Amino acid sequence: MGVVQTLLDALGEDVVTTAPDRLEAMRTDRSGWVAEGSPLALVEARTVEEVQEAMRIADAARTPVVPRGAGTGLAGGAVGTEGSIVVSVERMNRILEISAEDEYAVVEPGVITADLNRALEEHGLWYAPDPVSKNISTIGGNIATNAGGLVCTKYGVTREAVLALDVVLPGGTLLRTGRRTIKGVTGYDLTALFVGSEGTLGIVVGATVRALPAPKGETMTLGALFSDVKAAASASAAITAAGLRPSVMELIDAATLNLIRDYLGHEVFENLLGTSAGGSYFLVQFDAGTGALAGTRALQLVEENGGTGTLSHDPAEAEGLLRIRGSANPALTAAGTMLVEDVAVPRSRMPEMFARIEEIARRHDVRIPTIAHAGDGNLHPTFIFDGPDVPPEVWAAADEMFEASTEFGGTLTGEHGVGLLKRRWLKGELGEDSYRLQAEVKAVFDPNGIMNPGKVFD
Amino acid sequence: MGVVQTLLDALGEDVVTTAPDRLEAMRTDRSGWVAEGSPLALVEARTVEEVQEAMRIADAARTPVVPRGAGTGLAGGAVGTEGSIVVSVERMNRILEISAEDEYAVVEPGVITADLNRALEEHGLWYAPDPVSKNISTIGGNIATNAGGLVCTKYGVTREAVLALDVVLPGGTLLRTGRRTIKGVTGYDLTALFVGSEGTLGIVVGATVRALPAPKGETMTLGALFSDVKAAASASAAITAAGLRPSVMELIDAATLNLIRDYLGHEVFENLLGTSAGGSYFLVQFDAGTGALAGTRALQLVEENGGTGTLSHDPAEAEGLLRIRGSANPALTAAGTMLVEDVAVPRSRMPEMFARIEEIARRHDVRIPTIAHAGDGNLHPTFIFDGPDVPPEVWAAADEMFEASTEFGGTLTGEHGVGLLKRRWLKGELGEDSYRLQAEVKAVFDPNGIMNPGKVFD
Ligand SMILES: Cc1cc2nc3c(=O)[nH]c(=O)nc-3n(C[C@H](O)[C@H](O)[C@H](O)COP(=O)(O)OP(=O)(O)OC[C@H]3O[C@@H](n4cnc5c(N)ncnc54)[C@H](O)[C@@H]3O)c2cc1C
Ligand SMILES: Cc1cc2nc3c(=O)[nH]c(=O)nc-3n(C[C@H](O)[C@H](O)[C@H](O)COP(=O)(O)OP(=O)(O)OC[C@H]3O[C@@H](n4cnc5c(N)ncnc54)[C@H](O)[C@@H]3O)c2cc1C
Repeated sequence: MGVVQTLLDALGEDVVTTAPDRLEAMRTDRSGWVAEGSPLALVEARTVEEVQEAMRIADAARTPVVPRGAGTGLAGGAVGTEGSIVVSVERMNRILEISAEDEYAVVEPGVITADLNRALEEHGLWYAPDPVSKNISTIGGNIATNAGGLVCTKYGVTREAVLALDVVLPGGTLLRTGRRTIKGVTGYDLTALFVGSEGTLGIVVGATVRALPAPKGETMTLGALFSDVKAAASASAAITAAGLRPSVMELIDAATLNLIRDYLGHEVFENLLGTSAGGSYFLVQFDAGTGALAGTRALQLVEENGGTGTLSHDPAEAEGLLRIRGSANPALTAAGTMLVEDVAVPRSRMPEMFARIEEIARRHDVRIPTIAHAGDGNLHPTFIFDGPDVPPEVWAAADEMFEASTEFGGTLTGEHGVGLLKRRWLKGELGEDSYRLQAEVKAVFDPNGIMNPGKVFD
Repeated sequence: MGVVQTLLDALGEDVVTTAPDRLEAMRTDRSGWVAEGSPLALVEARTVEEVQEAMRIADAARTPVVPRGAGTGLAGGAVGTEGSIVVSVERMNRILEISAEDEYAVVEPGVITADLNRALEEHGLWYAPDPVSKNISTIGGNIATNAGGLVCTKYGVTREAVLALDVVLPGGTLLRTGRRTIKGVTGYDLTALFVGSEGTLGIVVGATVRALPAPKGETMTLGALFSDVKAAASASAAITAAGLRPSVMELIDAATLNLIRDYLGHEVFENLLGTSAGGSYFLVQFDAGTGALAGTRALQLVEENGGTGTLSHDPAEAEGLLRIRGSANPALTAAGTMLVEDVAVPRSRMPEMFARIEEIARRHDVRIPTIAHAGDGNLHPTFIFDGPDVPPEVWAAADEMFEASTEFGGTLTGEHGVGLLKRRWLKGELGEDSYRLQAEVKAVFDPNGIMNPGKVFD
């Protein structure tokens, strides 16, 4: 009997789908990568037990399993490859417990990140990591990719926010890692091992995450324009070096800002920004009343680096300035086919990295509008091209860009993960020893190699 | 040829010691646990290469290796067991790089934690984790135990402060984990796996740690007395639940405070505390100018819970209040032989945990003065007894205490590690599956089982 029939018998048609249109949708994610073949089935689990049953069956049949949240990933990690079973946990979307006293929440993996924050708000609490995709991505996906976001520069990435996990391993074992206490050192930190593991070790079916008191007090926002992106990057590095602690620090290069102007229309754009002039756009925000002094100092550093900016504590104005940043993704999407990259460098090297990207774009004659979580030194150079296939000059430019990030002491992915897209550069960054050891660690949890094969590792 | 002779031939007498008095000192650490036999040799490495050479030789000979920093551990992890080679990295104590721009420091593992902070101070920087042992313990030991400290309640434990590690594995391979960037998700988080691994996977020979801007602005200190330790624990939990963010929140029960009074003498004690009255002592500090409002609210919560306290921004007064806390360890040491425990519970369960410890102490007729990093729910119940051997009633009481911490959703070690002392409870907390998987993860890095055998795992 085939594995699909076994799954159907065990879990029923409510849970196991083989409808071609549903499977078709599983062949891709938001990276644009489309799998060559088709997965065998989609399992839409509603309970931990259903995930366990699916993992038991798949492991016994040596059938690949692709864990999937909302499919918003940008590295192809959730792409349902040929002959695999896609196990989606999107239906497992209950918030099971919120403890204001002990500052944690217990959630199922399919909870949409923003929904958790809406629920926490009533308790005066807050789950800090805020990927730009927070309205459409799941906590489980955030955990599996160790997602970053705008305020991570001050409040830490997903890893810092996860206390404990429930994970179903191949074979169906339910493993519990971590604890509800803030501190604890019994044994190895398996929680951290699973965070960012991109579905290659097991399926996250539950998580205890930190819920901190929501920051209180005035927010101060600084929007600035620079004629030179390197100067903007220098201002950003100077703000870090001065020990100011913005909660948001984002940079948008001139090419992206032009696309945003086209996307929003000149009038809306001018209303938001107060000018229709182009240039590189630099956004800094201080929360919780920290901006009174720091904002002024940041503005000074902007001006010392040749920018012009305005500082405001008006919430409406701040929202407008943030909307510019929020429009970057749709504006880029509208511009053509995208390959979104995600390098990170030490923050002082950002000006050099921006310069190098400009130089690479010019030499290969490709478009690479770039935005950055500048507070983290995390750049998203976005290759824009026509047609579905990545042209060779884009790959060549991407190659050089990854080399540059290594040269500057950086890394090839800051938050999106390796997935399918960055596999070919992984060994170069990790080195042979680390690569081999990581593959052996994978084999401890997944001896038959059924978990997301071909992702991360070759 | 014996392994010791091979080591001597390869590394010389400057590095390899077999002097009986030196080996004798290696049989114990600050836990008081003394190994039954004696290690074969002590290797005092000065370079990464020497550590590699020692690991190559030991692995080839299947001889156990015990990594050692300053030997201040409280779990017996660095104890040189019979027939082992103790590899000390205390001599590798150089600070190799400090980057103010990128907020990190690169250090050798033998650097004393407080020395790093002294060096960072000149750059306006600060390494946050501050174990009470910071003047005598090494960064390498802190990393290997994932050390906590007083300000970890606000600034995070050692894990949050480590960006990258250099680790020598059995066989001599030098593995590099992590990166200098703030964010990065290439492959598994091996850095976090090594943090807290208590020398069971490899020897940390280098670390890149976060160096944040030192907090600026006024510090506000609150010292309070309670007649009932449970009420003090309730006040502490209330401060957490109110979302105040103290940088220090410590609790000392009445039994410990009495010992501190005896230790300091009544006059000094009264000078520091402003009273010679006993009771449970509760210390709260707000740094970086956050205490202006929060301090008053914290004092209110203290009073609502039946305590009396004073709030001060006078540095001398604050130092006095901190000195009370700083005297706890010597006062306990003077009181008899100690077995320092280290349970952690969700912060709302602290009052119950304190009540249970009192009850256990009474029933078994043992002394268990208890102090707590109350902001983290991390309690140090300290069993005090006569003579070198732990009496059976102390083990019985400890057993019940660990059961209680589990019952309250807690863990058996918050920051000291498992080492030799907590092995017998580890499987109970982790469960069979996690225990087995962790042992298999160990085998990936240490296939011949030479790294600190008998520590953490049985
Ligand atoms: C407009 C837009 C903006 C974005 N902004 C950001 C950003 O600011 N920061 C950022 O980090 N990312 C960002 N992303 C990328 C993406 O949203 C994140 O990676 C997100 O965490 C993915 O969540 P998901 O639920 O969609 O996961 P999916 O895409 O479904 O899966 C992602 C990976 O996680 C694995 N996975 C998913 N769920 C589980 C589970 N329960 N157990 C085990 N493995 C699992 C999958 O196998 C895959 O490898 C953005 C994407 C878009 C489209
Ligand atoms: C008075 C006093 C107060 C203390 N206060 C605290 C506190 O507030 N918080 C806290 O967490 N701890 C505290 N401790 C415990 C202890 O100081 C810490 O565990 C400290 O991190 C140990 O550092 P060390 O250099 O002495 O390590 P050691 O005791 O030498 O070793 C500890 C463990 O780490 C391993 N190890 C050491 N160096 C390396 C290395 N380079 N590579 C691999 N493994 C290594 C050893 O094998 C052992 O398992 C206290 C101890 C004392 C005596």
